[in-house]
Amino acid sequence: MQPIKPQKPRIWLKDLKAGQGIDDFFVVRRFSLMPYRDPSKGHYLTAVLEDRTGKMEARAWDRGEQFAQVLKEETVFRIRGQATEYQGVVQLHIHAVEPVHPQDVDWEAFLPVTPMDRSALEQELDQAVSRIENPYIRTLLTTLFADGQIRRAYVTAPAAMSHHQAYIGGLLEHSLGVLKTALHLADNVPEANRDLLTAGAILHDIGKIAELQYDTVIGYTTEGNLLGHIVIGINLLDRWMEEVEGFPKALRIKIEHLIASHHGEYEWQSPKRPQMVEAVILHYADRFDADMFKIRQALAEAKDGWTPYLKSLERRFYIGEGGDER
Amino acid sequence: MQPIKPQKPRIWLKDLKAGQGIDDFFVVRRFSLMPYRDPSKGHYLTAVLEDRTGKMEARAWDRGEQFAQVLKEETVFRIRGQATEYQGVVQLHIHAVEPVHPQDVDWEAFLPVTPMDRSALEQELDQAVSRIENPYIRTLLTTLFADGQIRRAYVTAPAAMSHHQAYIGGLLEHSLGVLKTALHLADNVPEANRDLLTAGAILHDIGKIAELQYDTVIGYTTEGNLLGHIVIGINLLDRWMEEVEGFPKALRIKIEHLIASHHGEYEWQSPKRPQMVEAVILHYADRFDADMFKIRQALAEAKDGWTPYLKSLERRFYIGEGGDER
Amino acid sequence: MQPIKPQKPRIWLKDLKAGQGIDDFFVVRRFSLMPYRDPSKGHYLTAVLEDRTGKMEARAWDRGEQFAQVLKEETVFRIRGQATEYQGVVQLHIHAVEPVHPQDVDWEAFLPVTPMDRSALEQELDQAVSRIENPYIRTLLTTLFADGQIRRAYVTAPAAMSHHQAYIGGLLEHSLGVLKTALHLADNVPEANRDLLTAGAILHDIGKIAELQYDTVIGYTTEGNLLGHIVIGINLLDRWMEEVEGFPKALRIKIEHLIASHHGEYEWQSPKRPQMVEAVILHYADRFDADMFKIRQALAEAKDGWTPYLKSLERRFYIGEGGDER
Amino acid sequence: MQPIKPQKPRIWLKDLKAGQGIDDFFVVRRFSLMPYRDPSKGHYLTAVLEDRTGKMEARAWDRGEQFAQVLKEETVFRIRGQATEYQGVVQLHIHAVEPVHPQDVDWEAFLPVTPMDRSALEQELDQAVSRIENPYIRTLLTTLFADGQIRRAYVTAPAAMSHHQAYIGGLLEHSLGVLKTALHLADNVPEANRDLLTAGAILHDIGKIAELQYDTVIGYTTEGNLLGHIVIGINLLDRWMEEVEGFPKALRIKIEHLIASHHGEYEWQSPKRPQMVEAVILHYADRFDADMFKIRQALAEAKDGWTPYLKSLERRFYIGEGGDER
Amino acid sequence: MQPIKPQKPRIWLKDLKAGQGIDDFFVVRRFSLMPYRDPSKGHYLTAVLEDRTGKMEARAWDRGEQFAQVLKEETVFRIRGQATEYQGVVQLHIHAVEPVHPQDVDWEAFLPVTPMDRSALEQELDQAVSRIENPYIRTLLTTLFADGQIRRAYVTAPAAMSHHQAYIGGLLEHSLGVLKTALHLADNVPEANRDLLTAGAILHDIGKIAELQYDTVIGYTTEGNLLGHIVIGINLLDRWMEEVEGFPKALRIKIEHLIASHHGEYEWQSPKRPQMVEAVILHYADRFDADMFKIRQALAEAKDGWTPYLKSLERRFYIGEGGDER
Amino acid sequence: MQPIKPQKPRIWLKDLKAGQGIDDFFVVRRFSLMPYRDPSKGHYLTAVLEDRTGKMEARAWDRGEQFAQVLKEETVFRIRGQATEYQGVVQLHIHAVEPVHPQDVDWEAFLPVTPMDRSALEQELDQAVSRIENPYIRTLLTTLFADGQIRRAYVTAPAAMSHHQAYIGGLLEHSLGVLKTALHLADNVPEANRDLLTAGAILHDIGKIAELQYDTVIGYTTEGNLLGHIVIGINLLDRWMEEVEGFPKALRIKIEHLIASHHGEYEWQSPKRPQMVEAVILHYADRFDADMFKIRQALAEAKDGWTPYLKSLERRFYIGEGGDER
Repeated sequence: MQPIKPQKPRIWLKDLKAGQGIDDFFVVRRFSLMPYRDPSKGHYLTAVLEDRTGKMEARAWDRGEQFAQVLKEETVFRIRGQATEYQGVVQLHIHAVEPVHPQDVDWEAFLPVTPMDRSALEQELDQAVSRIENPYIRTLLTTLFADGQIRRAYVTAPAAMSHHQAYIGGLLEHSLGVLKTALHLADNVPEANRDLLTAGAILHDIGKIAELQYDTVIGYTTEGNLLGHIVIGINLLDRWMEEVEGFPKALRIKIEHLIASHHGEYEWQSPKRPQMVEAVILHYADRFDADMFKIRQALAEAKDGWTPYLKSLERRFYIGEGGDER
Repeated sequence: MQPIKPQKPRIWLKDLKAGQGIDDFFVVRRFSLMPYRDPSKGHYLTAVLEDRTGKMEARAWDRGEQFAQVLKEETVFRIRGQATEYQGVVQLHIHAVEPVHPQDVDWEAFLPVTPMDRSALEQELDQAVSRIENPYIRTLLTTLFADGQIRRAYVTAPAAMSHHQAYIGGLLEHSLGVLKTALHLADNVPEANRDLLTAGAILHDIGKIAELQYDTVIGYTTEGNLLGHIVIGINLLDRWMEEVEGFPKALRIKIEHLIASHHGEYEWQSPKRPQMVEAVILHYADRFDADMFKIRQALAEAKDGWTPYLKSLERRFYIGEGGDER
Repeated sequence: MQPIKPQKPRIWLKDLKAGQGIDDFFVVRRFSLMPYRDPSKGHYLTAVLEDRTGKMEARAWDRGEQFAQVLKEETVFRIRGQATEYQGVVQLHIHAVEPVHPQDVDWEAFLPVTPMDRSALEQELDQAVSRIENPYIRTLLTTLFADGQIRRAYVTAPAAMSHHQAYIGGLLEHSLGVLKTALHLADNVPEANRDLLTAGAILHDIGKIAELQYDTVIGYTTEGNLLGHIVIGINLLDRWMEEVEGFPKALRIKIEHLIASHHGEYEWQSPKRPQMVEAVILHYADRFDADMFKIRQALAEAKDGWTPYLKSLERRFYIGEGGDER
Repeated sequence: MQPIKPQKPRIWLKDLKAGQGIDDFFVVRRFSLMPYRDPSKGHYLTAVLEDRTGKMEARAWDRGEQFAQVLKEETVFRIRGQATEYQGVVQLHIHAVEPVHPQDVDWEAFLPVTPMDRSALEQELDQAVSRIENPYIRTLLTTLFADGQIRRAYVTAPAAMSHHQAYIGGLLEHSLGVLKTALHLADNVPEANRDLLTAGAILHDIGKIAELQYDTVIGYTTEGNLLGHIVIGINLLDRWMEEVEGFPKALRIKIEHLIASHHGEYEWQSPKRPQMVEAVILHYADRFDADMFKIRQALAEAKDGWTPYLKSLERRFYIGEGGDER
Repeated sequence: MQPIKPQKPRIWLKDLKAGQGIDDFFVVRRFSLMPYRDPSKGHYLTAVLEDRTGKMEARAWDRGEQFAQVLKEETVFRIRGQATEYQGVVQLHIHAVEPVHPQDVDWEAFLPVTPMDRSALEQELDQAVSRIENPYIRTLLTTLFADGQIRRAYVTAPAAMSHHQAYIGGLLEHSLGVLKTALHLADNVPEANRDLLTAGAILHDIGKIAELQYDTVIGYTTEGNLLGHIVIGINLLDRWMEEVEGFPKALRIKIEHLIASHHGEYEWQSPKRPQMVEAVILHYADRFDADMFKIRQALAEAKDGWTPYLKSLERRFYIGEGGDER
Repeated sequence: MQPIKPQKPRIWLKDLKAGQGIDDFFVVRRFSLMPYRDPSKGHYLTAVLEDRTGKMEARAWDRGEQFAQVLKEETVFRIRGQATEYQGVVQLHIHAVEPVHPQDVDWEAFLPVTPMDRSALEQELDQAVSRIENPYIRTLLTTLFADGQIRRAYVTAPAAMSHHQAYIGGLLEHSLGVLKTALHLADNVPEANRDLLTAGAILHDIGKIAELQYDTVIGYTTEGNLLGHIVIGINLLDRWMEEVEGFPKALRIKIEHLIASHHGEYEWQSPKRPQMVEAVILHYADRFDADMFKIRQALAEAKDGWTPYLKSLERRFYIGEGGDER
């Protein structure tokens, strides 16, 4: 049987106009059955649908009770219907409701997405991997990203639940930012092995693909809550390195140390502190990239030269007023 | 060729008397060549041999230079010779020196050993495993300890480098102590799953078998230094659980969480804090067993009712004077 | 004169139905006088009465102004009246108001009470005391609990203002829980004196009988605020031990040390850290019992396998989903 | 029987000259029996005697073995003998050795003593007490210091084991210093009750009379180790306040709060932080007096304008060089 | 042209009565234009005016749109108008609006002012300066306070944004409080140089004149936010000391050290901890004065013997109930 | 008079051979007069001389007593003499001793010097300054380094007393390292002003020229001890910026903020934390350069793959063993 494929290109809720028909995937955030004034008519359905551009009220009249058997809150359904206008507000009249298989869902329709060009980022990733000279490390990364499921997760996952780059594509964006900063820092450090550093930067947060869930909302998985992305990432890499023939044990330990220590301090949940030159650089690069992301976001909201108070950094930042240093 | 097998039972250095011949394994701590007064005679060899009962000076006269080609410091060799007495002190005259394969060495001859009956402890371990009802957990532990190398390491490793039970058999002794305490604590906690708790207690420190080296001295391995026993242990178990057919993912995560959180706080290098009833119990039992070991050791040295200052607990302990509460 | 004795058995507010007459003690939380529309008629009284099962609006019409002279907020009064129904809600019509002497009040009518069987707990306490072998310790506890006022306070007091077992009978429940855990822990510690441990567990929080007030609401007394239950408890025991003839000074110091150190760390307001085996065990048992109480309460509210966020432990707990380890 | 009373005035060891006879109390630090070269002569005794001015070697020839039956190390004995000179060094020839009753010992002969005039300090104490207007507080202090044993202990005890005023009379000196500072601070604080403050300053460290031992060396008693001077002091005062007829409970709590909170922070072993104006003042005065004592001592050793490093304050202090601000 | 000078004495908003005319400076907190029901009439102006005694609604009918061109929120304007009454509330009818030059504004009309007599405080300052014996220090302070702008700022600035003495004149009041306490503390410290201490107390917070802005609301200036009053104060004094001929370098360093270290600890933003006797005293005096201010303020609000919870000190304070110690 | 100019090129002590004559500057570490066996001959002089390559014993026979009048320990003198050999050790026979003016001393002869090419570093400094576009900042730095005394101090001072680059030229080396890292980091941060960053990197530690003394030993000056290099640096720059005509106040505050916040946290003695993008970058670059210096130094001493324990970073670093990742 042919898997359902809603129409393309998608009409986003923010663009939907009265009169337009739609047939697409939406998160059903809330729904309930409401009694008709005439009790003999039973109930109609009211629901709130959402995609990443906004929310919309929806109604189903005749088959409301039937649809209510099928629907589940916080879940994606294929919805067919027509936009109408009621008291000046666009509203959707639901004609059909269909459960969908998670694999068929384009999750990015429901969450914010990195402002950067994602295919350019992906290309940058592949180039970085191809520049690795150490055969074992290059094989590890090549194999890993040749696995469709891992690659898809890696280029889709957010970088965090809320702190920084909390959007689809955030993990990829952040990892490449860390890589760039790390290689810059290594420019003055001849002792640093750039292959190790490249692997460390690309892989340091790979555990986030299983730590975070990011379908209709960004949150922690049970695995994420109980193990954390450091442990998850090491476990994952440990298995993949075993698959690379002849992967040296010393190299495996070094790469796992980069993951284990990248938060830098025990109280930030690193079970080890950086004890290799590359681990020190990676930690600095990671913190720098995350801090800068937060600050830059705050700068965009600055007023009278000052950003709003940034809770995670416990301060406001000053950007100055036009021309004040001239 | 027949592998060498030095005589049994071993004569310990502390018991060696002038006139006795020996043929056994010793650590060669230090050696050097000394010139004869008559330069034409070349050099003789002086060495310090050690077993876990003590050290002894040794000399080789004629073939000293030849032996020096073979010896390596901090390494175990098979030594043949005869005890002599020189100025009232027993000394060994070396007749032969032979390199040995690590596998042939009974390492426990060189390090302190738990005062408890090791085979009784091992039996206790097996009984605890056999009491597990959950088939997956029982299979995991049975398979694990059926692996000769892991079993041998587990029953041999010390529990720590210096803090507590820093002797051969310490890991086994400590793990069983934690198990007993944990099950006692669970007596008042019906919510606690005793199978999980048994697995957690037995496995929480299993990473120490690779974190520590304990041949001629107890120290950290490079893997131990860079990853720590929590990460090492999780990696090891992750692979073994994968081997158990049908091992539920939820169960794997729970067991790994027990390992990940058993130190209880981030600053004690746990990447997660206990978030399950069993993890809380395990953490309490682990700390209690370790604290009690240290205190009990100190009590044995108490004078005038007070132990010496215990650096790791930052205090002295009071044991009272005979009959003072009667 | 005969002390007033309201009817028995009590009708709880949650069970009161229109038409029933009542004559019992209630906390008067709030009251005020309201003007009649016809000013010549003066004012009527509205009040909120409460017992531990709920609150109820009450009115007094003719004698409202007179009652208002007598009433005081947050205080218990004997109230006579009749339940009526007004707009579908049950309301009390007050006929008489009488001040009461605190001694006549059954305070437990106004606060939550332990879910456990309180007389069984009390029996458990007495048995524990009777098992003590050291004659001085046994005499101390026997005498102490033979004092009616102390016994009543001990079996009534809550264990804390809000953290754990914050209900009538909580102190007794918590102390016995600590005792059970402490004796279990001591099973592996032959050095521990079980009599001392029994005394420590039963008495460690005895200062709470004066630290907390628990009549119409649980709060701190001025003495509790300024001295805390550790100092109050030691003072109290110091006087009682002096009354036991021949009580050894060394034993007095040990028992006071158990009280002084049971919080374990200075920052938790212990002026001393545990320096005796029994003090270490007591501290572990106290923390374990309190933590487990909080966690178990949270588990009862778990949803999708996770408890709500527990502020005092700064995390959520995982209980897993049905059958996930099978 | 007449108690022994060694000659007065005492000859201090530092002043003892060859030829002088002595008959006085000394600490016997160490002693041993040495064989004569001629074995038939048995052993002679060598001992180290000490008073607060210094140490001296002593010998007993004929009756050495007999004296050795009587002597005990770290204990005070009455020693009779004669100073001689041997190889240019003064040495004592012991003629008689007599055990003494602690009560007969003037302990101050063996420990450093405050440089201040102790009877003037004692007078200052009595005047401060006599200035108290509140009858209960004045009675408390008058009665307390009328108790010979307490008074003697109070005017003799050191203020600390090593931190500040670690000498005979230190407690009195420190308490009066705190009193002076506290009253000065209160000059700007009309809300402060000067009677309470006087009591608080005089009594805040009274527990030190039982926390510290200060006969032949300053150290902690077992009670001091297990309870600390705050708990000991409150216990002591609690009993004495009970003896003052009609002593108001509110006043007792306030005074005990002053003791309980005078260290200011939990981590400095105060079970409560200051919650009364007088408690705040007392805490500031206590810290100020202790800090200033340490700094002033260090200033006396300053070189090139700087004191040595003061470990307890983690810094050096600058006193400047002559005339550098002119 | 004659600078505008509104009438004197000022009529405070809290005293303004319907019918009175006013012509004075007010902060315009908010204003907006509201459409008349008859659109052809355009808009009228509504505004909220404020002085330090309160706020008042104001309206401008005919010339509202014209005034709106001139007004700016959070800014002081000269307003002429007449009080009217509307629905029982006094309201102002605006007749004229005039921008003003900051120099002409008496800022104290808009912020709370110290309850103390400010000219008495100023006199006290001058006397303290005149008592300084060291010619360099006296010249420094005399010159500094002879500068009109600095003197005006110093006697006007608040002591803090919210913690203590957060009102006009607060800096002066606090500095003199610190001086008094510091000199009292120095009474027992002969080593302390009273001239240095006087300078330190008067100048320790002088940077606040540029750290804080205190025209229509107390807040931080950009300079205050980026440098803090310690750095600002040292910079300012450094320049002024350079102007005093022959000012000894050692003296300059000492005074700057007093400023740099007066917060006492690094985490309280002192780049140095006190390393001179005078710096230690100054730090104690500063903390004591600030703490006492907060506590005293809380005492004024005490109920049932207890102050409200003081967030900055993390506790409540007990003042006791009438006569409870008698 | 012609200032003395010892011979060039200098003969270093480590190269001095018996028979060679020398005439150069040396630190006299210690000296004393020793009596001749024949008392009638008086005393001879023994001294320890030092330059940065080592120490040497020296003697003066006939004029020893006369030289002792002139010498001072820890001070540089011009010494003339001849190397001799005594019992196989080279020793100096002193012929003449001459006090010298500090200005004439080439201090670098007595302390370790950066291994880098100092004139290349100086050139790099000038180029960095010349690349600044903002006219005020460029003028500030140009003027500053045109001042001979400041330039000399800046290119000579060490970067720290012991932590990192504790040698002559260290400040310059460190500042340029920070500059390079900072500009690299800024490559990804378009918001960062590179001129500000250049100024911040070059000037952040300029206070060290007065904080540290570095003539015969590296230590703190009194100014350094009492104010620290942050305050000293801001003071210095504040005066120099005032000299640049029209220097914008906003720019001055920003530059001073860079200095004030570069340690990043209050507990590291920064009175402000970074609140500008440039300040954040500068802080990261400063820590990174200092950490890397320490680690790199440790790497040079690594054995078996591990560096010695680095106390300031509380760990050892792993460099791996040859070829272990291949």
